[in-house]
This record gives sequence, structure tokens and C-alpha cells, in this order.
Amino acid sequence: MSIKYSFSANAVVRDPKGRCLLLRRSAASRNNAGRWEFPGGKLDAGENPGEALLREIREETGLDAEIARVIGAGESALPDRRVAYVLFEATTLTTNVKLSSEHDAFEWVDAARLCEHNLCPQFIDFAKEFSRKAQTQEGA
Amino acid sequence: MSIKYSFSANAVVRDPKGRCLLLRRSAASRNNAGRWEFPGGKLDAGENPGEALLREIREETGLDAEIARVIGAGESALPDRRVAYVLFEATTLTTNVKLSSEHDAFEWVDAARLCEHNLCPQFIDFAKEFSRKAQTQEGA
Repeated sequence: MSIKYSFSANAVVRDPKGRCLLLRRSAASRNNAGRWEFPGGKLDAGENPGEALLREIREETGLDAEIARVIGAGESALPDRRVAYVLFEATTLTTNVKLSSEHDAFEWVDAARLCEHNLCPQFIDFAKEFSRKAQTQEGA
Repeated sequence: MSIKYSFSANAVVRDPKGRCLLLRRSAASRNNAGRWEFPGGKLDAGENPGEALLREIREETGLDAEIARVIGAGESALPDRRVAYVLFEATTLTTNVKLSSEHDAFEWVDAARLCEHNLCPQFIDFAKEFSRKAQTQEGA
């Protein structure tokens, strides 16, 4: 069994109202076209995860975000390796999103409603848990 | 605000009965002496996370484990950087633990009872969630 993993750093980017940014993968995407995901991307060997994540967020959304903390993880399997996704929470003061060609839509979503979108499989368990906690906090 | 992160890969190693291995940090440890943790350790730049994790498990416990999947994450802050912990689930067929000098005790613990131990802070939120799921599954 292969134990070759690479890492991806992704973020739940939240606006001042606490809403979470989802991006929809372009129709031309090789994997998961049309599904929704959190901004971020693969880490190259030796790359600083925090800086790489902020750079990816900037490239994919045009936003200057700040990293708050690590909040979860996920996994997907490619033919030659597995990918471990580390999910961070990040904040932004502006909501003026400018997409790259990787995505063709974005939406600011209430934390409790993330799972109403057709998410990429590697984020579903995390999103369920994140939404559950958001609902618990709102109900508390 | 510093966004310098390094990664640590750690594992909930489970025996054939499903119990989870906790290790107690030696009294001489610089951080969290006497607290319990999951085997694993810091990843060096460019290191394959899966191989590094299995090597750490072997060094710290003498066990040959197999990685099943990514199951969670955590974070801690050091003076000069933050550490992102990626938690994997792993399995072992043998339970004959041989500790290194890093730890002075081990215990195989039911998943639902992990939080009864004095865990290192970076693992507490994860362990609560993991135990909650274990209890839900047992009760289902």
C-alpha cells in the first residue's frame, strides 16, 4: 500500500460577517469540475505553509487574508499518491473577489450552510463538522 | 503576525481491538513533560509525510504500523513559529511497545476515553471530537 502523501493547505476565508468563501472549480478542471472548494493548494517541498497559503488565496481570489489557526483536515487519493489537506481559518476585511481561470464562480456562505453546496469530496467530512459546530454555537 | 508554520505528522495507532496508543512525555521533556500524546513528530522540509510518520512510530514505540487515512488536525504555538499537527489513523497487528527515552509510559486506551488522560494541549480538541464520534458509533 502506498504511503506517499503530499500536503495541500486550504482555508476557510471568513468575511467580517463570518461568512465563508467557496469557489467553484471551472468546467475545464481535470478533477471535480463544477464542485465547490476552499481556496488553497498543494505545498511544494520545503515551502512555508503559511506563506504558500496566503499566496494561493491571493492568486485565486485577489484577497489579502490573515491566517487565524488550523481547524481541520481531509484526504483524497490520486492514482500515484494521496493528498493530506490541512484546513486553516483565515479572515479578510474585504470581500471584493477576483477569480483566476481555475474557478468560475464564488459565494460567501453562512458556516451552517456549507454542505448545501456540491463540495469536492475531500472537504465534505470537514464541512459537516464545521457546520455542526457553527450551528451548536448559534444555538447556545 | 507570524505565519511561519511547520508541520508535524502524528498518528492514532490502533491495535486489533481498536484501542488507541498514548505515550507519556518524559519528565525531562522541555515542553509538556508528563502529558500524554500520540506518536509522531516534526516533518523536515521535503520529507515524505507518510514515510516520516511510520519511521517516528517505529522509533518511539517499536511498532510497525500501517497508515489508514487522515483524520484530524491541531495547532500549537512556539516562540518563533506555529506547528500544524496532521493526525492520521494507523493500525498495528502487535502491541509489544518499546519506548524510546522521549517517553516514560504508554497505554492502550479506548477511543471514547482518550480525554481522561492529561493530553498535550494541541491534541485536546481533536481527541474530544474523536471520542465523541467513537461514542456515537458505539451508541448507534
